[in-house]
Amino acid sequence: MKPPESKTLRRDLASIVGDDFVLTSVPDRLAYNADCWPRGIIMSRGRQLHRHQPAAVVQPRNEHEVLGVIQWARRTSTPIVPFGAGSGVCGGTLADNDGVVVDLKRLKSIVETNHDDMTMRVESGIIGMNMEVELNRRGLTLGHFPSSLYCSSVGGYLAGRSAGQYSSRYGKMEDMVASMRVVTGAGDVIETGPDPTAASPRDLVPDCGPDLTQLFVGSEGTLGILTESTLRVSKKPSIQLYRGFQFRTVNGALEAIREMMQAGLRPAVVRLYDEFDSLLAKRKSAGSGGPAQGLTARALTAKLGEVAMDVLPVPVASELKGRMSTVSKALLNRILGQPLTLNALIDVLPADCLLVVGFEGESPIVDNEADYAFDLLGRRGIDLGREPGEHWLRHRMDVSYKQSPMYDAGAFVDTMEVSTTWSNLTRLYESVRRALAPHVLVLAHFSHAYPEGSSIYFTFAGFGADTDETLRRYEATWATGLEAVARAGGSVAHHHGVGVSKAGFTRRDHPGGRALFEALKQTFDPDRILNPGKVWSEAEGTEAWP
Amino acid sequence: MKPPESKTLRRDLASIVGDDFVLTSVPDRLAYNADCWPRGIIMSRGRQLHRHQPAAVVQPRNEHEVLGVIQWARRTSTPIVPFGAGSGVCGGTLADNDGVVVDLKRLKSIVETNHDDMTMRVESGIIGMNMEVELNRRGLTLGHFPSSLYCSSVGGYLAGRSAGQYSSRYGKMEDMVASMRVVTGAGDVIETGPDPTAASPRDLVPDCGPDLTQLFVGSEGTLGILTESTLRVSKKPSIQLYRGFQFRTVNGALEAIREMMQAGLRPAVVRLYDEFDSLLAKRKSAGSGGPAQGLTARALTAKLGEVAMDVLPVPVASELKGRMSTVSKALLNRILGQPLTLNALIDVLPADCLLVVGFEGESPIVDNEADYAFDLLGRRGIDLGREPGEHWLRHRMDVSYKQSPMYDAGAFVDTMEVSTTWSNLTRLYESVRRALAPHVLVLAHFSHAYPEGSSIYFTFAGFGADTDETLRRYEATWATGLEAVARAGGSVAHHHGVGVSKAGFTRRDHPGGRALFEALKQTFDPDRILNPGKVWSEAEGTEAWP
Repeated sequence: MKPPESKTLRRDLASIVGDDFVLTSVPDRLAYNADCWPRGIIMSRGRQLHRHQPAAVVQPRNEHEVLGVIQWARRTSTPIVPFGAGSGVCGGTLADNDGVVVDLKRLKSIVETNHDDMTMRVESGIIGMNMEVELNRRGLTLGHFPSSLYCSSVGGYLAGRSAGQYSSRYGKMEDMVASMRVVTGAGDVIETGPDPTAASPRDLVPDCGPDLTQLFVGSEGTLGILTESTLRVSKKPSIQLYRGFQFRTVNGALEAIREMMQAGLRPAVVRLYDEFDSLLAKRKSAGSGGPAQGLTARALTAKLGEVAMDVLPVPVASELKGRMSTVSKALLNRILGQPLTLNALIDVLPADCLLVVGFEGESPIVDNEADYAFDLLGRRGIDLGREPGEHWLRHRMDVSYKQSPMYDAGAFVDTMEVSTTWSNLTRLYESVRRALAPHVLVLAHFSHAYPEGSSIYFTFAGFGADTDETLRRYEATWATGLEAVARAGGSVAHHHGVGVSKAGFTRRDHPGGRALFEALKQTFDPDRILNPGKVWSEAEGTEAWP
Repeated sequence: MKPPESKTLRRDLASIVGDDFVLTSVPDRLAYNADCWPRGIIMSRGRQLHRHQPAAVVQPRNEHEVLGVIQWARRTSTPIVPFGAGSGVCGGTLADNDGVVVDLKRLKSIVETNHDDMTMRVESGIIGMNMEVELNRRGLTLGHFPSSLYCSSVGGYLAGRSAGQYSSRYGKMEDMVASMRVVTGAGDVIETGPDPTAASPRDLVPDCGPDLTQLFVGSEGTLGILTESTLRVSKKPSIQLYRGFQFRTVNGALEAIREMMQAGLRPAVVRLYDEFDSLLAKRKSAGSGGPAQGLTARALTAKLGEVAMDVLPVPVASELKGRMSTVSKALLNRILGQPLTLNALIDVLPADCLLVVGFEGESPIVDNEADYAFDLLGRRGIDLGREPGEHWLRHRMDVSYKQSPMYDAGAFVDTMEVSTTWSNLTRLYESVRRALAPHVLVLAHFSHAYPEGSSIYFTFAGFGADTDETLRRYEATWATGLEAVARAGGSVAHHHGVGVSKAGFTRRDHPGGRALFEALKQTFDPDRILNPGKVWSEAEGTEAWP
């Protein structure tokens, strides 16, 4: 690593964005040292703070300044990393020490909402929640509710093909976007779809030739910096109908979900928790926000203690029970240190699965669909009434803000969102559980259902005696897990993006994609300044990790 | 043009596909001299038969042979043109005399249908109707019903971003496709989506990185030859509910359609005929299959005669009336020779618009949606009951097979399908009508409605005294029409593709697309052998016409 030439750098960047918006102090650079990739969090806790501190952070306020930064980066061969709100969990915004982070949060306006066309034009750096509040005020919704809603940006959603909790109704970001405005690494400003600077917006459906918009969605800042987009919006729904159902087996529940989706029903929310995840939910420990929401250190240990009463040898169980009120390293080690045993025990637990389904929109269309769906699910499983659904609704945002204590105690928590077709879903689920079992405690839920398949959202927790062991276990977990996903014919990412954590695995998803990515880089980023190492990597598997 | 070296060519190609499947005779080459681009038909009728006869036609039976043909073409620098069934209306399959047409009709199998995932794997050359019949036998439907269904292929649908008559429910081809298998011009065989040769099919949703599938959709054989695809299918519907509504004005009807689409209703069919098109329909002349369906020479003259009774000066009208039973050049000239007057007269006609709406699928979801939609439309317009809808349903495929007599009489008929957002729709409609009025008689209907906008399908008829005058008028019509579309902020194509007829206009749709197309060509067709001159052109407007 060559040391950044700090003074020239500052002066150059200040001439583009103004001195107030070039950050080079140690605390500022430290603040951009990690996104929410758990590996980075583990490293930070272990005081490994240096590797990803950028040379500088620059905060342009408009497209003109973004272009200026890109032109400067080309001249000086400086790698630049577009940055929204840093909530990514795959290391997609990590810079090297000679890189400059381009923080886009000053591009934060809703440019226009169009109620005739049900579209909006919005800048990239706006925080999801701020945008949604303003849309609601105008009687609209984007319908995009990732659990990171309060700390993530529209640009990030588009860059990473984000899906919100209501994606079954409103779609993923790639379904919502009609056009993006991008400053490419070649220094061109292009509108990927119809040109909204024309006298009037053109058709939003890609009608002829190859589709430019869908090229830039999911490109994660490797081809250009996204400044604005035109997104489809919906009326703010006037009714929400949520309900819980209980099924004896995961497979029975999946069958019912498949039937519902293929009948043309459009639930906003479909979440099926597997046996163990449901078990945690059912015991309703204090502080639990529902299945998987309760994965805080205290709640996890408390719940595991309860589970232990059923399944562990009595002496072990008693010990756990006695210590349920404290979260100690030793206890976590006891629980998470032997994941294979614990996972195996969970496998033989007698437990049912919980399905949460929600509809939202306008009467009478939504009432009719919900009636039909609830009737269908009630005949396949047991109707638990409104409470489980509404409980989920109240607590759906909790999970993202409860993980810190786990890390404090030396453990880690992470998620792996994969997907496949219905006919392959059980195989994928079982393969990945089996692959992860030796390394971490595994929970799963199924969400984001489609007529042709579903995603699976694995949540896992692990523990190492020290930072190095934790990092080793963390890496082994991902290497084994994504290898299993690829072997089982699943897609290695569903809505968290690729970043750097999966960049060594994407070739498995798209065998023809390498040539395409090279061609795009050659055209849109000829000097290779844009977010190096993300999305695609020469190195395979976790070899691609920085 | 260099003359094809016929013997070497035959021998070379025969060594790849077998001698029976290399066609070089004059009648064979003549058969591929034109697709259904009206300009080609006009030229053929005028005995201008030579320009697009290929050097040979080759008919590979599988991917291996397709690859062989591409490798041969690279070695010999021979331009090759992928060909499905030749129903395209934009010259997308026209070859030059030194080119070889690659006819894919022998790739005609449904490889697999998967009822769990509701998908099918199908070869490119299968004719739409043959595929649909077989799907129906298995209880399925693709839901894709272009009026060319009997004479068009799946590969052509994908190549040109085709939309069928039921697209509002089932989507356009780009919505239905999960993955394509392509032999690129670089000689690589790639699967654009998840790899179905893996142990099991991967997820069908593009989950990470840039989207390869959506790059090849709409590429019209300029990047590779499509051999197979995985498409989403649906259950064959058990009910169909069709109905007609009458509105006083186009704008009033469009407002009602917009409300229906934005309420989340999913009609299969939405077709609004403008005042004149509706007038033709209402008069129910013999042989009419409904609005625009009746645009045969006999029906048109008969109807125009009737219209004339209302709007033309009495002597002219009488003369027309007296000659209504014959279709003569003189009569067509009389009617179509002064389009500006006729269009102006039509503008002041007192006439209502006809809206045909259809729902299909399963009870009770579809019944509920149809009830709600029919109620909504009935409050905005006048409910005409089931007959207009069912009349349309019975005659919806008639139009494609009735145009020949018009050409025989020296006239031409063509269509221009454009699209834009709701807020811009009236402006686009009026601009294009005004631009076309001096050249041709113009009718229009609105179909393929979306929450954010709609397409407009202009049908126009013109006449020239001889082939040259007809060609001049035809070119002037398109040049003026598409220029008006671009100026009014519309998209120059909605579902007929680009071919060569619009290749000089696509830059208007996608200002950033030129660099992308060049990059893709460089990567996937480095020797520039694939379908030259299509989709994008250096020349502007009709200068790009061959």
